[in-house]
Amino acid sequence: MTDRILGVLGGMGPLASAHFITRLTLLTPAQIDQEHIPAILWSDPRIPDRGTAMRGEGPDPLPALLRGIDGLIAAGCGAIAIPCNTAHGWFEQMQAHCSVPILHIARAATEELRSKAPLGAIVGVLGTQATLDMRLYQTSLTHAGWDVITGSPQDMAELVMPCIHMVKANQVREAHAPLMRAIANLVARGAQAVVLGCTELPIAFQAGPMPSLADGKQVQIVDTIDALARASISWARN
Amino acid sequence: MTDRILGVLGGMGPLASAHFITRLTLLTPAQIDQEHIPAILWSDPRIPDRGTAMRGEGPDPLPALLRGIDGLIAAGCGAIAIPCNTAHGWFEQMQAHCSVPILHIARAATEELRSKAPLGAIVGVLGTQATLDMRLYQTSLTHAGWDVITGSPQDMAELVMPCIHMVKANQVREAHAPLMRAIANLVARGAQAVVLGCTELPIAFQAGPMPSLADGKQVQIVDTIDALARASISWARN
Repeated sequence: MTDRILGVLGGMGPLASAHFITRLTLLTPAQIDQEHIPAILWSDPRIPDRGTAMRGEGPDPLPALLRGIDGLIAAGCGAIAIPCNTAHGWFEQMQAHCSVPILHIARAATEELRSKAPLGAIVGVLGTQATLDMRLYQTSLTHAGWDVITGSPQDMAELVMPCIHMVKANQVREAHAPLMRAIANLVARGAQAVVLGCTELPIAFQAGPMPSLADGKQVQIVDTIDALARASISWARN
Repeated sequence: MTDRILGVLGGMGPLASAHFITRLTLLTPAQIDQEHIPAILWSDPRIPDRGTAMRGEGPDPLPALLRGIDGLIAAGCGAIAIPCNTAHGWFEQMQAHCSVPILHIARAATEELRSKAPLGAIVGVLGTQATLDMRLYQTSLTHAGWDVITGSPQDMAELVMPCIHMVKANQVREAHAPLMRAIANLVARGAQAVVLGCTELPIAFQAGPMPSLADGKQVQIVDTIDALARASISWARN
């Protein structure tokens, strides 16, 4: 049993944070309720859209993010996980605001990538346009030694962003096919692994069969929800 | 958009409360994050086992339940849902303790039963042994006019309780077959509908195909997680 309580700042989107809580539970070795990890989910879908704010076209989400963090700390949480990649654009301000560690989703995903693609390999990154624009993954993965490619502008506009919006609208099955096409296009450009760098994407990914890839190619997938869940379990059990 | 924040007292078990949050999200009509329902999940799997306490063989869960309720109210929640049927054995004490409504899971399930089985029909109820022993469903359903049957002592010991324990231990697929056998046995005894009166049971139910029933019989299922989620959405949107 652990007395460490995990705080989860969620609602971005709400299905992604629900899926995070499910995966946190399923990935925890436990035989009875009391062996699972105490967690508090602050699911506030009213938090202003992160992408819109990043483009300077909508209200700043930071005050709502900090309110959630304050609520989680007041409830006794000892660390915070945020199952939203784009919200990590405000990571420094959030971490500076609070006394407990925030588990960084991109660092967790990068750890998982190490076992899935050798350094030097081409790695594809998908996410919201805002996450790609802020280079949440590109800079650190390139620095670590991978060769990073992202979805083409056309794929981002016609496949990836529609997929993300469909998951937020509960159209999970419909979101599957466009994501598979975006992944297949990255693989055709040489990607050996693809980072699903938006927490809506793993939900769309698991809603149907694996992508059909040309020439019998294979691809490794880094699921940022699972990566953050495993980092959270490590924290709780440490 | 709603400013009503739903409190969810969970962790009993943690997979059931994760599934509740998922169903709350999927059952909400919403096109974007900001149209979903704000919710705070207090998932405290350390809460002492409800069944053991009911038999006088373990610590009282009430103090931990009240701590969770206090935490949810401090965070601003305007109503509380508890996705655990057995915990409703302490419903009166919990409701007396707090100023906001607690949405009763058995009342929500009974509402759903009305559209699934005519009054006078035989209705099967499955749940923890403690939930059956406290007659959470039997008294009210009988009073309303249904003819209630429960799992046989042998089925409770060999199928239903093992199924519940398997879900709490993350063995979701393994939990499916024993539940299907328990349901089939209730149908063979005449049940036209079965209430899954423990929030682990819907998780086991959906982990595989429908039960195979003798003589081409059909059965209606009342999922207490979905029933409580729908009651929660009604509260939030009202």
